[in-house]
Amino acid sequence: MNILITGGAGFIGSHLADALLAAGHRVTAVDDLSCGREANIDHLGGHPQFQFLKLDVCDEPALSEVFANGSFATVFHMVANSDIQAGANQLDLDLNRTFLTTFAVLRAMKQFGVRQLVFASTSAVYGELAGPLREDAGPLFPISFYGAAKLASEAFVSAWVGNFGIQAWIARFPNVVGERTTHGVVFDFINRLTADPKRLTILGDGKQCKPYLYVKDLVEGMFFIWERSKEPLNYFNLGVGSDTTVRRIAEIVVEEMCLRDVEFSFTGGDRGWVGDVPRFQYDLGKVHKLGWQARRTSDEAIRLAVQAELARRGAQK
Amino acid sequence: MNILITGGAGFIGSHLADALLAAGHRVTAVDDLSCGREANIDHLGGHPQFQFLKLDVCDEPALSEVFANGSFATVFHMVANSDIQAGANQLDLDLNRTFLTTFAVLRAMKQFGVRQLVFASTSAVYGELAGPLREDAGPLFPISFYGAAKLASEAFVSAWVGNFGIQAWIARFPNVVGERTTHGVVFDFINRLTADPKRLTILGDGKQCKPYLYVKDLVEGMFFIWERSKEPLNYFNLGVGSDTTVRRIAEIVVEEMCLRDVEFSFTGGDRGWVGDVPRFQYDLGKVHKLGWQARRTSDEAIRLAVQAELARRGAQK
Repeated sequence: MNILITGGAGFIGSHLADALLAAGHRVTAVDDLSCGREANIDHLGGHPQFQFLKLDVCDEPALSEVFANGSFATVFHMVANSDIQAGANQLDLDLNRTFLTTFAVLRAMKQFGVRQLVFASTSAVYGELAGPLREDAGPLFPISFYGAAKLASEAFVSAWVGNFGIQAWIARFPNVVGERTTHGVVFDFINRLTADPKRLTILGDGKQCKPYLYVKDLVEGMFFIWERSKEPLNYFNLGVGSDTTVRRIAEIVVEEMCLRDVEFSFTGGDRGWVGDVPRFQYDLGKVHKLGWQARRTSDEAIRLAVQAELARRGAQK
Repeated sequence: MNILITGGAGFIGSHLADALLAAGHRVTAVDDLSCGREANIDHLGGHPQFQFLKLDVCDEPALSEVFANGSFATVFHMVANSDIQAGANQLDLDLNRTFLTTFAVLRAMKQFGVRQLVFASTSAVYGELAGPLREDAGPLFPISFYGAAKLASEAFVSAWVGNFGIQAWIARFPNVVGERTTHGVVFDFINRLTADPKRLTILGDGKQCKPYLYVKDLVEGMFFIWERSKEPLNYFNLGVGSDTTVRRIAEIVVEEMCLRDVEFSFTGGDRGWVGDVPRFQYDLGKVHKLGWQARRTSDEAIRLAVQAELARRGAQK
């Protein structure tokens, strides 16, 4: 099957490319490399079923050419501003990079008659609703611009399904960790402990508690819902039943870096930054009932992510 | 209080201007006149507390100048593509005119420190959820592009409240009828019966059944929630507890036009067009509890709308 991955050189997109190729599909990955990195797909160079094209999906002529040549059965739309905190400081970043990119892909799908869309959404659409959160929870009032732009994207995906008879799978991701991350709490803690191995300042009170899903589990989950659910519009929380506090993440980083006597200090307050949601919990009943569960716990996912990042830095030396 | 109405020459915006002026506020109305009409505000020309400026809110320098000169306490953001059916035939109409207009207004509010936003949303955000629909119903999967663009707008309003401490009132409108409409079912039926007083073709099976709220009741309801609810983000269904079938609308139009022996025919199917929602019902408990109810029934609202439109046409002859 011919598949397009937008954001295919990104953290999650590149793992998706690995998995789709392993399953025997032909994969075209596009990425403007603003968040993605060529290093994430270097190992796929020369793969006969893989091609990479550097482009911005909002460049309409360039995207049209990709669609015209691609005969895609399915689009996995992964493009987004993946740095949620940066979105809080730049008003139109998520508008342009998280929402309007989705609109551009939907428009091309309509124009070229592509019938299937797998869309990367987020727990941030739920805002500060108290969990455990089912997929039909409401009202949906996101706090972050990222969450707002993803909800806006879901809304247009839904209208596309309603008007043009495409089939869509909306996968609402939690925090995702693992090989090839370029930011986030694991990355930050390693950076700061590398600079100063004696102390670590932690944003908030350290009690912010979230489920962290291992990236390869996430990719497996996306595959699973894409293959097994058959409604016109399918929507699932993808997650893991356990969670990890920010303090515990710091402890795992310290352990894996073999540090001792690190002094933790906390900036205080119940959240890391404005727009951060201090804790949330998914109800995973829907995807569990379909037959999928994450293999690794949240703590295991964090540890795998820390190990991978330390190995990558070690290899670079 | 200095108030900005975007879409102030539109169907609802112009009634809002009347009501705000009657309450003693100073009103600046902006409108690009793509949907709005100067005729709707002609009667306000010369009012010492009113000014009208023709501009597109997406014209950033022009909008900035209005905000710089306005010292607005509150923005009533009414701009939207008000022709939902047209949005189904033109992919980016609701993106540009219903959603990006909202983003432009939010950006200006942030830049100029305006703290209150009353936002015109819609029942279309609920998609095809079965009623009676409470404000916290989910999942939110709109069918129409209009509904998608309004949900996208709500999402960004919510992020603005979360990040910038503004206060917002989201009023989800049902179908609204009354003086100064320029399209919709009442308008269409009068047009068609004027052209051929003997027969009327009705889209769908005529059993589509919706609540129609009289425009002056709607404006009163918006005022009421704006004055009485004090949360950072306030959101209400505004509606009327009764409803009217499409066939009944046709009958009321026939009665008010004093026609006889009109033959109705139906195109069939359960909806008027793709993206139409054949029936829906609000749960109005939240706004009723706050103390507001519509004065006119849905049938009365339709009859008032028909009478107003016939009077307008009579006056033009």
